[in-house]
Amino acid sequence: MTREDGRTPDQLRPITITRNWLDHAQGSCLVEFGRTRVLCAASASEGVPRWRKGSGLGWVTAEYAMLPQATHERSPRESVKGKVGGRTHEISRLVGRSLRAVIDYGALGENTIALDCDVLQADGGTRTAAITGAYVALADAVAHLGRAGALTGDALTGSVAAVSVGIIDGTPMLDLPYVEDVRAETDMNVVMTGDGRFVEVQGTAEGAPFDKGELDALLELAGKGCADLTALQREALAR
Amino acid sequence: MTREDGRTPDQLRPITITRNWLDHAQGSCLVEFGRTRVLCAASASEGVPRWRKGSGLGWVTAEYAMLPQATHERSPRESVKGKVGGRTHEISRLVGRSLRAVIDYGALGENTIALDCDVLQADGGTRTAAITGAYVALADAVAHLGRAGALTGDALTGSVAAVSVGIIDGTPMLDLPYVEDVRAETDMNVVMTGDGRFVEVQGTAEGAPFDKGELDALLELAGKGCADLTALQREALAR
Amino acid sequence: MTREDGRTPDQLRPITITRNWLDHAQGSCLVEFGRTRVLCAASASEGVPRWRKGSGLGWVTAEYAMLPQATHERSPRESVKGKVGGRTHEISRLVGRSLRAVIDYGALGENTIALDCDVLQADGGTRTAAITGAYVALADAVAHLGRAGALTGDALTGSVAAVSVGIIDGTPMLDLPYVEDVRAETDMNVVMTGDGRFVEVQGTAEGAPFDKGELDALLELAGKGCADLTALQREALAR
Amino acid sequence: MTREDGRTPDQLRPITITRNWLDHAQGSCLVEFGRTRVLCAASASEGVPRWRKGSGLGWVTAEYAMLPQATHERSPRESVKGKVGGRTHEISRLVGRSLRAVIDYGALGENTIALDCDVLQADGGTRTAAITGAYVALADAVAHLGRAGALTGDALTGSVAAVSVGIIDGTPMLDLPYVEDVRAETDMNVVMTGDGRFVEVQGTAEGAPFDKGELDALLELAGKGCADLTALQREALAR
Amino acid sequence: MTREDGRTPDQLRPITITRNWLDHAQGSCLVEFGRTRVLCAASASEGVPRWRKGSGLGWVTAEYAMLPQATHERSPRESVKGKVGGRTHEISRLVGRSLRAVIDYGALGENTIALDCDVLQADGGTRTAAITGAYVALADAVAHLGRAGALTGDALTGSVAAVSVGIIDGTPMLDLPYVEDVRAETDMNVVMTGDGRFVEVQGTAEGAPFDKGELDALLELAGKGCADLTALQREALAR
Amino acid sequence: MTREDGRTPDQLRPITITRNWLDHAQGSCLVEFGRTRVLCAASASEGVPRWRKGSGLGWVTAEYAMLPQATHERSPRESVKGKVGGRTHEISRLVGRSLRAVIDYGALGENTIALDCDVLQADGGTRTAAITGAYVALADAVAHLGRAGALTGDALTGSVAAVSVGIIDGTPMLDLPYVEDVRAETDMNVVMTGDGRFVEVQGTAEGAPFDKGELDALLELAGKGCADLTALQREALAR
Repeated sequence: MTREDGRTPDQLRPITITRNWLDHAQGSCLVEFGRTRVLCAASASEGVPRWRKGSGLGWVTAEYAMLPQATHERSPRESVKGKVGGRTHEISRLVGRSLRAVIDYGALGENTIALDCDVLQADGGTRTAAITGAYVALADAVAHLGRAGALTGDALTGSVAAVSVGIIDGTPMLDLPYVEDVRAETDMNVVMTGDGRFVEVQGTAEGAPFDKGELDALLELAGKGCADLTALQREALAR
Repeated sequence: MTREDGRTPDQLRPITITRNWLDHAQGSCLVEFGRTRVLCAASASEGVPRWRKGSGLGWVTAEYAMLPQATHERSPRESVKGKVGGRTHEISRLVGRSLRAVIDYGALGENTIALDCDVLQADGGTRTAAITGAYVALADAVAHLGRAGALTGDALTGSVAAVSVGIIDGTPMLDLPYVEDVRAETDMNVVMTGDGRFVEVQGTAEGAPFDKGELDALLELAGKGCADLTALQREALAR
Repeated sequence: MTREDGRTPDQLRPITITRNWLDHAQGSCLVEFGRTRVLCAASASEGVPRWRKGSGLGWVTAEYAMLPQATHERSPRESVKGKVGGRTHEISRLVGRSLRAVIDYGALGENTIALDCDVLQADGGTRTAAITGAYVALADAVAHLGRAGALTGDALTGSVAAVSVGIIDGTPMLDLPYVEDVRAETDMNVVMTGDGRFVEVQGTAEGAPFDKGELDALLELAGKGCADLTALQREALAR
Repeated sequence: MTREDGRTPDQLRPITITRNWLDHAQGSCLVEFGRTRVLCAASASEGVPRWRKGSGLGWVTAEYAMLPQATHERSPRESVKGKVGGRTHEISRLVGRSLRAVIDYGALGENTIALDCDVLQADGGTRTAAITGAYVALADAVAHLGRAGALTGDALTGSVAAVSVGIIDGTPMLDLPYVEDVRAETDMNVVMTGDGRFVEVQGTAEGAPFDKGELDALLELAGKGCADLTALQREALAR
Repeated sequence: MTREDGRTPDQLRPITITRNWLDHAQGSCLVEFGRTRVLCAASASEGVPRWRKGSGLGWVTAEYAMLPQATHERSPRESVKGKVGGRTHEISRLVGRSLRAVIDYGALGENTIALDCDVLQADGGTRTAAITGAYVALADAVAHLGRAGALTGDALTGSVAAVSVGIIDGTPMLDLPYVEDVRAETDMNVVMTGDGRFVEVQGTAEGAPFDKGELDALLELAGKGCADLTALQREALAR
Repeated sequence: MTREDGRTPDQLRPITITRNWLDHAQGSCLVEFGRTRVLCAASASEGVPRWRKGSGLGWVTAEYAMLPQATHERSPRESVKGKVGGRTHEISRLVGRSLRAVIDYGALGENTIALDCDVLQADGGTRTAAITGAYVALADAVAHLGRAGALTGDALTGSVAAVSVGIIDGTPMLDLPYVEDVRAETDMNVVMTGDGRFVEVQGTAEGAPFDKGELDALLELAGKGCADLTALQREALAR
């Protein structure tokens, strides 16, 4: 079974992580999963949102968005429409939750890290690329705070990476580009820590409902993909 | 191990489904999971959204919302704030996807069913109660269309129910009320068909990341809960 | 002259006031005028809006809204449209003014009571049902503040009830359901105190302008209706 | 009993109606009630809103607004706030209803007249000045349509004028400026036809509830005021 | 070469500046450039925006808007649309920048002057009329602050006036009304100080791009126009 | 006189134009003026806005926006704020007008080209970089339409480029980065055609008003800069 782009079912697309793509943000990278291209930036600032003031705890928040010409057909700008769409909201919340899973709020102290994941080009898997890239930007922003003496301990308790998996014509496949994504019967996004545990599992029956066996096969594939991504993140951060 | 409200870990809260709670909607019910109370209504209308016109296929859409005084502290109205929040968007999309999983668009023809799930009182598990109740309203709206001769076949391909599960102090538990929900390390919402397959699996590590064993235990518990809910739905629709 | 539903012109529809329908609000009731069903809730909180701080005076505010499937044809959600409509605004303001007429701000102290009137089902007279029910919720919220020692006197200076009246085929009639409301030449909403004085009189010529004689006849009918509603409120609060 | 500005209780402020204040609108006037100054314009256009198409009936709609510096303290612009306030909505609806009371939709044919009432300076009674001036603009726009051969009969069935009345220190008074308005115990806006019948009666107990005797006294005073305004409208239109 | 309205190419339309057109604002005028009519108001208040607090410096801000019936075809209200349009934004910013060019923030102290320029009737050149009139309102508001002892020096460092110029059929012309404006190949708005220096130069090629010779000719014409307007402003302020 | 970054007053920053940076858009480039980095994309689609239908003429529209982390301090997203800011509106309009100056609408036929200029990193001159890059994207999109046989002639009548100039400490300088921009007494953005004529001239006195001599010096400098940029555009399009 070969795929349109020549990959085996359990193979990632070519992954590139270009660190420090921006000059102003405390951490940033341009992450590429094949033709999917997401600019991830992390800005660290003193203080926390009002509801958290005086707690001694930090906060991490995330916003995901897509440029109008990232997609095949130009899509209207959310700023011009005057509201954030449901899909954008949903993914922003997912990115935020995923990254917060590896943050020690106490060690972070009353500082906030804002993650921005802007999709410059979309070809499937934008939310998982965003999470994978955001981790790299986050790690750099945390390191920046550490060098500035703003932390009281190790604020990063682990690493986090994400990948999409799906069943196409009965075969579980890793890291779906757009052409595969629209054909998938079941679609799953899996966020995992560097030590192989789950942070988020979001499986959706796009066509027919799926059973436990299919779920298990997808999770195993995702486990392999996240392990590969974890190695690439580590490499990028070591440079 | 007993719970604050006396239930065993694998026991649902008292569930009530009061069908036809409204006079105007083509299908409706007030569904109660303990003190969580959601008014579900389905209105069927001729025609489909513009992007689906001429396809011969129907559509099902859903909106979830919460009354300001449903929660412990009154929360501001989204209409007054002028925008729908991220959580509302995310749940509305989940409810819509879940119900569409049991719809045969061709048999539905160019008709739209709009589901409204309004939380009158919230005590945990509002999204899963909404899905469980929305199915009952949907079934009645489909039957209404059938009686009106608007369908070209059986538009409902199965039933759908949902429940929340979570791990509290290391124990997997079924159907969490608010007091348990805030304490859960891992929280999962599972949507299943009446024949025991998965429609949506959404697991989130609120505290520590979780492993495959924990995931499996939660899915098994959810399977039992959804089976119980399916029986209650069937009973309500038989009345 | 008998009406479609068998009532005499000066007879109310069956009225039900189910107190404490909600668990979290400090006062609440489900009020029913025939098939019109409004959930009224009052939440009391410390503090007042910014423009009133330091005055020693309290505040009462109200919001009225309608669920999308309350009406015959589903109406779009104001939160999704991103703005509150003119009718909603107008009625919210009317409910607030009406209830404030029986509040002693000084005795209330710097506390705010927020009233929410959500129409679950609409069959004419939703605004008058909302006012009538909101008074019961308000009375319970004031009593709650009293028991908590937050008042410096009797914050409630009287009771308030409201009813719609209209002229149909030349006959003045009390408490119009939807089918009568659309046929009324003149439509009036009257808000009165328990001792029979006027708080609000809003008369509108829907068809032909009306004269003083017609106005007087309508006001007399409204006086009778409000007296009946006052008795029912008292009964509900005595339970 | 004399008033601060030297008037007797049943006397209007100096009223000025400057017709055709604008060049583009089909009807317009600058109406002044003392220092209250409202620019009223009527634009006639072919066609009706979507929900009225094919009915053969016309439509009249109105929008009321206030310039930021019309009031003592500058008030923020609603366009900048991004939403129309409740008071604005309420008054726009009142103006529209009031003018529609003297329109024969069939004679108007499928044409729409849009009324704009912009308060340039506010000193009490802006909504009643708006209605009084809007009638003059409307009459000119109807005449314009008539000359253009767009009407099938007399689209204007009468005239309409409006005035505020209130009780101050126990005395009913006509046409309240701001300084009196804030002191009024009861405040009423009355819209009447040229032949002395009621189109709208909106009475509000600002301080204490009012009784039937007070209501009658206020209505009588309003009747006199509206008759005077009707004469002034006729005079302006005769010029 | 004579123009449709009989003017020579370098002649302004009849200009009228009616000072103190409003009673509440600290400065105001109705400015007319032919049939273009703009109500300019300046309100002075203590305090500055948050980002300027503690600086000891004042602030001047401006908002430009157009009444719906100012134009030939009624244009929808921005408050009703729920957003300020691009053109409105652009002109508001231009008016603010232009007036701030003659303000000494230190002498103004921590006071804010808000300028509102509302176009009551539009016939070309509304933005330049707005700036010209706003200066008169600003001067009165500054004088008001001076009399109130709120200034620490001369807050007004000069005067400012503005005019539009354009090339029509190859001829540079001053102060274009609407009929000329739509025909202009090049359109320029020029804001100048009373002593003949430039504050803003905004030239736009509506038809063909323009060269340096045309630019110079337009600037010279604008210089003459602004000098004439400066004299009229001085006269108005001397009254 | 040397500048902080070593340039002479009449020297551009290093300019890079990376064509076809995106896969989906019909034309695109990443344009860099020093550290300012703007992603420009042009999408061509059949049809024109409603107000232009049936005219046989095409349309070109533009939107400019800035990513939140493009600036030194992260700025909030306009989609989240729910409205487009004045600066964004103003620049979007400028970009659209500038590119339309070299379009022959008739030759374009009823097709629309939408330009998106998204600032990925900001260091002064973002609007002029946007125009310069947008021209390259536009040229490619027009060529694409030409190859598809959708044009009836040469839709592009010339080229367009833009640059900022300003006076710093009395010296006119070309292409200001952020550190110079904030210090400039006068700031001017100039848009020119490839044959050296003006499309837009926008000069603003940030500090003191400027005279004709300063204006002339700035325009000459801009002329040189635009000529250099025109050469770079031609080179990029020749590759």
